[in-house]
Amino acid sequence: MTTVTSTNPSSGAQRDLAMSESTDADVLEAARRAANAADDFAHRPLMWRAGLLQAMAEELEADAANLVALAHEETALPLPRLEGELRRTAFQLRFFADVIKDGSFLDPTIDHAVDSPMGPLPDLRRVRVPLGAVGVFGSSNFPFAFSVPGGDTASALAAGCPVVIKAHPAHPATSQAAFDALVRGARRTEAPEGLLSLVFGFAAGTALVDAPQICAVGFTGSVGAGLALWERANARSVPIPFFGELGSANPLVVTTSAASERSGEIGSGIAGSMTLGAGQFCTKPGLIFVPAGEAGDVLVAAIVASLEELDGFTMLSTGIADHFRRGVDAIASTSAHALVQRDKGESAHASCQLFEVDGESFRSPGAYALREECFGPLALVIRYQSEEDLRDSLNATEPALTFSLFGVDGDPDASWLLSLGAQRAGRLILNGFPTGVGVSWSMQHGGPWPSTTNAAATSVGAGAIERWLRPVTYQSVPDTLLPPSLQESNPLALSRRVDGVWSPRS
Amino acid sequence: MTTVTSTNPSSGAQRDLAMSESTDADVLEAARRAANAADDFAHRPLMWRAGLLQAMAEELEADAANLVALAHEETALPLPRLEGELRRTAFQLRFFADVIKDGSFLDPTIDHAVDSPMGPLPDLRRVRVPLGAVGVFGSSNFPFAFSVPGGDTASALAAGCPVVIKAHPAHPATSQAAFDALVRGARRTEAPEGLLSLVFGFAAGTALVDAPQICAVGFTGSVGAGLALWERANARSVPIPFFGELGSANPLVVTTSAASERSGEIGSGIAGSMTLGAGQFCTKPGLIFVPAGEAGDVLVAAIVASLEELDGFTMLSTGIADHFRRGVDAIASTSAHALVQRDKGESAHASCQLFEVDGESFRSPGAYALREECFGPLALVIRYQSEEDLRDSLNATEPALTFSLFGVDGDPDASWLLSLGAQRAGRLILNGFPTGVGVSWSMQHGGPWPSTTNAAATSVGAGAIERWLRPVTYQSVPDTLLPPSLQESNPLALSRRVDGVWSPRS
Repeated sequence: MTTVTSTNPSSGAQRDLAMSESTDADVLEAARRAANAADDFAHRPLMWRAGLLQAMAEELEADAANLVALAHEETALPLPRLEGELRRTAFQLRFFADVIKDGSFLDPTIDHAVDSPMGPLPDLRRVRVPLGAVGVFGSSNFPFAFSVPGGDTASALAAGCPVVIKAHPAHPATSQAAFDALVRGARRTEAPEGLLSLVFGFAAGTALVDAPQICAVGFTGSVGAGLALWERANARSVPIPFFGELGSANPLVVTTSAASERSGEIGSGIAGSMTLGAGQFCTKPGLIFVPAGEAGDVLVAAIVASLEELDGFTMLSTGIADHFRRGVDAIASTSAHALVQRDKGESAHASCQLFEVDGESFRSPGAYALREECFGPLALVIRYQSEEDLRDSLNATEPALTFSLFGVDGDPDASWLLSLGAQRAGRLILNGFPTGVGVSWSMQHGGPWPSTTNAAATSVGAGAIERWLRPVTYQSVPDTLLPPSLQESNPLALSRRVDGVWSPRS
Repeated sequence: MTTVTSTNPSSGAQRDLAMSESTDADVLEAARRAANAADDFAHRPLMWRAGLLQAMAEELEADAANLVALAHEETALPLPRLEGELRRTAFQLRFFADVIKDGSFLDPTIDHAVDSPMGPLPDLRRVRVPLGAVGVFGSSNFPFAFSVPGGDTASALAAGCPVVIKAHPAHPATSQAAFDALVRGARRTEAPEGLLSLVFGFAAGTALVDAPQICAVGFTGSVGAGLALWERANARSVPIPFFGELGSANPLVVTTSAASERSGEIGSGIAGSMTLGAGQFCTKPGLIFVPAGEAGDVLVAAIVASLEELDGFTMLSTGIADHFRRGVDAIASTSAHALVQRDKGESAHASCQLFEVDGESFRSPGAYALREECFGPLALVIRYQSEEDLRDSLNATEPALTFSLFGVDGDPDASWLLSLGAQRAGRLILNGFPTGVGVSWSMQHGGPWPSTTNAAATSVGAGAIERWLRPVTYQSVPDTLLPPSLQESNPLALSRRVDGVWSPRS
């Protein structure tokens, strides 16, 4: 039995927690309990399900001081950031309660029997049903919002799926405390036993993906870990959907006009966005496209000046800091030159870095280190000479979660740049920074491979619920045997499409 | 250069066609042309795109006599069936024109900038965009509806994706003629060059899945071919979604009450459904669960009597007939006993077969041949002794496209059986047969693995369009740079969700 250890990245201090890493048998038992809860959970009333998420939000808030203190100790993230993240996490649970109450995630669709040009068509009614028990992997960089009580858990519960959560090893005490809060919310709303479980340890993660009762997996983390688990999910005798949000290098383009007009503001903003949370955001703008020439020089100088005012950072873990230093070394070994290269630090400590390169070098096949995500407070400035140079370099980037553009009103380049961005990213930001992902109906957090494993999915916003559902059609089934969502009298007062016409909530 | 050959399965006669199997270079060129057409195509007005599909439907109808004659020669399917299938295929193109005009497949969602509890949220607008050029594999068993001009092609074009189609080798002349009709429709509506291509040959299929420009693949066919291509799609350096509809054994349950009351009607219906199209339907009811005892005996006798009236069939090809004979032999080598075992036939000819087995033998781990799909005019009757025996056997089946139930009003078993069916299939049919898949808003044609590779997808009905789309969010982008679907004034008069509230078409 390996004891779970909590590490303080600021001090390096470690303490053993009162739990052990989960064995394969533990994981299987958790998956079995989740699967056993699935049918009961799926058939609870929608309003009850919304109340469950609200109760969980309340329990998180009630324990906020403790949760934030634990997370601060384990992640070294600043207290205000963690307080805000916890508020956002509770907001997210309540948002999904609203999504449940709205009910359109069920996509109820009814076609009454009809004599069509193809002959008689029977009564057909389609609704989405939960997939069953699912697995969720907590991320390192958002100990609340993308971890135990985060968007994957919230959206899966909203869909009607029991969840087995694999805690991230960088914040086990926070994970356990957040889990306990969720369980208190589940208990006081009399949720089915086994609805939620928490497992610890590397081996538990692979066992979770392998567990036959698990019907889908949500993951936020590194490309390496994510792809290994994605392959594992596909290699099962019954493969399952694996929704991996794997991060990206996130291009940000400044047009010549914007650089000429607003270099100071844009430069300091870039410095702030790329170092927010010590650059440990999957939406960090990592590739900054700046025109060659004087306007661009002024902009780059503004970024440099802002970065030089910054202190060092404590990263989420020594492992992440080591990985960051390796990334910095890899970039330094290319033809990119350092504009800001502060002390690389040791153990979990690191400082910000800024490199610059020309387009041709950026596109060089051997210089992959320049194009891949470097998780941490680093960005690469690519100086472009012309529209063609810019376009070629953008086409050499990997598809990303986000694409940001700074331009001016009537900017002649905005149109083609946004069009190119739409082909290569999931979210396009005009005159703003990609860090900060709003929880809303219209958020898309997911882009083409390799930024996520499924570009049609999102892990933030109302659309996140769709990952945990599949449609079922009932043919010629009378009201007495139909789920309430499909009954003729529309007892749940849902928006439904009836005979091809969408009718809003009655 | 290998010449493409057309074979008449009835006579065995072969004729060389005026085309060669596609080389890898041909496939790459087709994919490149499709990718080059993608941007233009994606940005054409929705009404134009609807008109394209309508023109294609008209061109198919204008060439109906020729198409049906070719298909009859190549598939041996009866003329009335082929005439109906072609009508259905044209109807399907027009149906997707309606889906385009409806516009809700775009799922336009707008959240205006707001001060949320989380601080200010920017203006966010989300819409679905086409994935780009896609590949489609024609099936053998529906030379129109699931082949060149079928649902995959129609839904991909509706989504705004150019298509490279791999013709099924069992009906190359039909494929070419149907393709020519589609191209005539594309030409007269001035569609972009390269919008549609047709490739031939086994190697062309693998080259199509490998082609870097291809963004997704739709496939209808066997489990073996489908899984091999699915693995290939996942093994690319940039994996792509592979939507495989692989068929299933399709359980059909008759309750004791239903067997007692309506054995004659149900028995003859089963015989008809399992032999429709020589049993070459992915929705063929292959596993017939009948109660032990007298009522079940009468029902089985009715199936047998109906089957014994049937002549032999000409299958789609000698290969499919050979495969069918191997399946029959595999079942005959188990403890199942033959109730109807007519001449197994030779070359492309075959006859119907009915076997019977008890629940325990059906569930035996070694008797997988009893549980897998046997494509052709064959079904297996499983006689159940009790609710428990029935439930255990149903849980031993593989998840399926469909689940059919024959019961009576107030049948005590209907509820748990439909509930079990909903967990294991994509479409539930009460007192009806699974063959016949209506093209409508509420159709689901796709079930849990291994019946399809993605249980959340459908290859028939309005939902089929969703496979070819992914969402993109625009943040703080003004109207002048937004696609029309997201502009504030709603110029396309779409149904949209605005600030959380769904508004029907204005």
